[in-house]
Amino acid sequence: MKRNIVYNQIAGQSIDRIEALSDGVFAIATTLLVLELKAPVNNVAQSELDLFNALIKESPSFISYILSFLTLGLLWTGQSVQYDYIIKYDRNLNWMTIFYLLLVSLLPFTTQFLDQHIMFRLAIGVYWLNLMLLGFVLYLHWSYAARKKYLSLSLEDEAIISFTYKRRIITILALYTLGAALCFIDTRLSVGFIFLVQLNSALALIGRGKALHFFRKKSNDDS
Amino acid sequence: MKRNIVYNQIAGQSIDRIEALSDGVFAIATTLLVLELKAPVNNVAQSELDLFNALIKESPSFISYILSFLTLGLLWTGQSVQYDYIIKYDRNLNWMTIFYLLLVSLLPFTTQFLDQHIMFRLAIGVYWLNLMLLGFVLYLHWSYAARKKYLSLSLEDEAIISFTYKRRIITILALYTLGAALCFIDTRLSVGFIFLVQLNSALALIGRGKALHFFRKKSNDDS
Amino acid sequence: MKRNIVYNQIAGQSIDRIEALSDGVFAIATTLLVLELKAPVNNVAQSELDLFNALIKESPSFISYILSFLTLGLLWTGQSVQYDYIIKYDRNLNWMTIFYLLLVSLLPFTTQFLDQHIMFRLAIGVYWLNLMLLGFVLYLHWSYAARKKYLSLSLEDEAIISFTYKRRIITILALYTLGAALCFIDTRLSVGFIFLVQLNSALALIGRGKALHFFRKKSNDDS
Amino acid sequence: MKRNIVYNQIAGQSIDRIEALSDGVFAIATTLLVLELKAPVNNVAQSELDLFNALIKESPSFISYILSFLTLGLLWTGQSVQYDYIIKYDRNLNWMTIFYLLLVSLLPFTTQFLDQHIMFRLAIGVYWLNLMLLGFVLYLHWSYAARKKYLSLSLEDEAIISFTYKRRIITILALYTLGAALCFIDTRLSVGFIFLVQLNSALALIGRGKALHFFRKKSNDDS
Repeated sequence: MKRNIVYNQIAGQSIDRIEALSDGVFAIATTLLVLELKAPVNNVAQSELDLFNALIKESPSFISYILSFLTLGLLWTGQSVQYDYIIKYDRNLNWMTIFYLLLVSLLPFTTQFLDQHIMFRLAIGVYWLNLMLLGFVLYLHWSYAARKKYLSLSLEDEAIISFTYKRRIITILALYTLGAALCFIDTRLSVGFIFLVQLNSALALIGRGKALHFFRKKSNDDS
Repeated sequence: MKRNIVYNQIAGQSIDRIEALSDGVFAIATTLLVLELKAPVNNVAQSELDLFNALIKESPSFISYILSFLTLGLLWTGQSVQYDYIIKYDRNLNWMTIFYLLLVSLLPFTTQFLDQHIMFRLAIGVYWLNLMLLGFVLYLHWSYAARKKYLSLSLEDEAIISFTYKRRIITILALYTLGAALCFIDTRLSVGFIFLVQLNSALALIGRGKALHFFRKKSNDDS
Repeated sequence: MKRNIVYNQIAGQSIDRIEALSDGVFAIATTLLVLELKAPVNNVAQSELDLFNALIKESPSFISYILSFLTLGLLWTGQSVQYDYIIKYDRNLNWMTIFYLLLVSLLPFTTQFLDQHIMFRLAIGVYWLNLMLLGFVLYLHWSYAARKKYLSLSLEDEAIISFTYKRRIITILALYTLGAALCFIDTRLSVGFIFLVQLNSALALIGRGKALHFFRKKSNDDS
Repeated sequence: MKRNIVYNQIAGQSIDRIEALSDGVFAIATTLLVLELKAPVNNVAQSELDLFNALIKESPSFISYILSFLTLGLLWTGQSVQYDYIIKYDRNLNWMTIFYLLLVSLLPFTTQFLDQHIMFRLAIGVYWLNLMLLGFVLYLHWSYAARKKYLSLSLEDEAIISFTYKRRIITILALYTLGAALCFIDTRLSVGFIFLVQLNSALALIGRGKALHFFRKKSNDDS
């Protein structure tokens, strides 16, 4: 070992710990918003119909909750994919992830902000910015790890996985940007579009056939 | 590796991470409700009796808290059993679990909703729906993993475990449905019945003798 | 494998998961109380002295926070010791731990209850009951695991460890009971005594010399 | 094994558990503060400009949030470095970490306190004290582990790592103290200086070239 080292050479090398921290932050971020669903709980209803109406009136909050959960699910999955291949870590990756988690924990705020101000383009802009930065950090994290050769992949495999992964991020961010741009027509259209993009990302409805097609091909190759 | 792959072929394969995320969400969901037990804390009591009455008045909240904890315990145990056998994961299982966690984190809300509106059938219906969906996703998760041969079990063992596991889910869901149906007689009867089902699931009082019987037999086989 | 098994024979066998769930619940329980320290934050101070007084006025809350943290630290340590030796798990241990976590997550409530009603014997009684039940479940958990031969210890070592562990629980519970009984003289004396017991458990001041003595002896044996 | 042992000889030896507990506490502490960003959410805006102003007015809270996140990131990284080398644990390290986590979970409080009373030296003093104690416990934790030979390092490597690690802590604490002392000129200057120190620690801007220099040298040595 060199006699002269600096702290940054030994800091942030624990992959297990950063994964555990990430899981913790995601678990909390996904669970926090449910605390906001208080209105129908505190409602003093006189009849079943009263209570039903109180519940229905909260439906935007429920949709916002589901939207937020889907988004966090996408972000969590998108991050954990990287760790399937990364086998070395350093303080730069460590801090990229901490910034990523900062953005993740802001998401409940930006989602609520959007939920309360759904008619305002600013609220959509803030939400969109949050998503863009998240995608950007994910992209940077992967590129850096690939460039530093921290991956457990052969050069050829790395090219394929990198291309697929980066294409995915760029596609999603482009769709979000398209969705955000729709706010100049109508803010609800904008939110609806983003919601559909996320629903499709989670359910993999469009492109599913294609994916299955490749799955089948791949398992043929394997056997 | 195939040159052309899609993101969904590489996403959601980390079992360790999804288990950690699940543990986080369950830990938070089980702990959140205690925040609601504020009334006796803030109560300004003049005498020991005053304070005792304030505590007693909160007993429905305590029962609701215990009920919620038991339910989450059952759901957590029911999910973690699957991971004792699952050795491969894909994006579909990944997203089933994220939906499962979405339903788990809604449970504190539906429990509180039931707690505040215990005289309304709608509140029981919402709570029952939450439980049904949770059972349904667990069932689907297991069936999919079994069908895809992601289990560490021989075909014969898989048949036995699958039968046992599915029978358990169906039995519990049937009992919940019976309990929910009792709300047409009396809503408190309904809640009481569901509570007893969950208490028995946790304590394993009924059917315990039978279980012990098999335990003994099994350890005889092992030796 | 036997053809006929029941769900309870396959449930609750994952030690890693129950440890992760426990860590999550403890992490949340220890962090929740800080949310209550709001008064000095929201205080509108005119001068440094104003602010200082606002902070000092909150000192009982700080002490209660530290007390609660120490207690949770003791309980967490007391539980994690067991897992150093337990190598097999079943649904009964699984549910004992879930009950343990239920009691753990009640502790912020009973601590706050004590904090707000420090002059009332009932508040001390409730807090004491919570601690007693926690100790009782820990004891039961260990005894059951030992009886079922789920430990990684030789019979002789198990006897020594078991004796030490059980003596510790009984000593602490006896001291808590003595402390709680002091409330018939003065409730503040009672809380003060319990606080000192916990501080000593954490810092290991009394009995430390003895411990060090054995440490030294042990390392002599090892070498 | 010796016949007579005391509880403290078997307690607190699980490194995995204390790491998991730490990750949980950090995850919660980093996420809690976002709950405070409520003002712009609840704001009833008439126009885009109204909403924008409401958001801008909250900018001190955002900066405080980012500051807090950076600090927790530094503290988390600083702690996890130690576990890259520590391979044995005892009850003293266990309790040092619990005290460390106590101080960590107080940080959202002291940050908010600072945020609300940024013009008061007392608020800066409290925040500074929190940071000093955190650094002190980290230092003690490492020194103790090194002294007890709990590290996976050769004596020579230990000397280098220890020197680097301790120098880092002392440098940061000295800079914080300098920052805090600036409050006698102006409290905002003081907060600004601390913020810049933390930003630099996270981004490693100053000293980065030097670090990269050694990185390059080191990888030359390795090859």
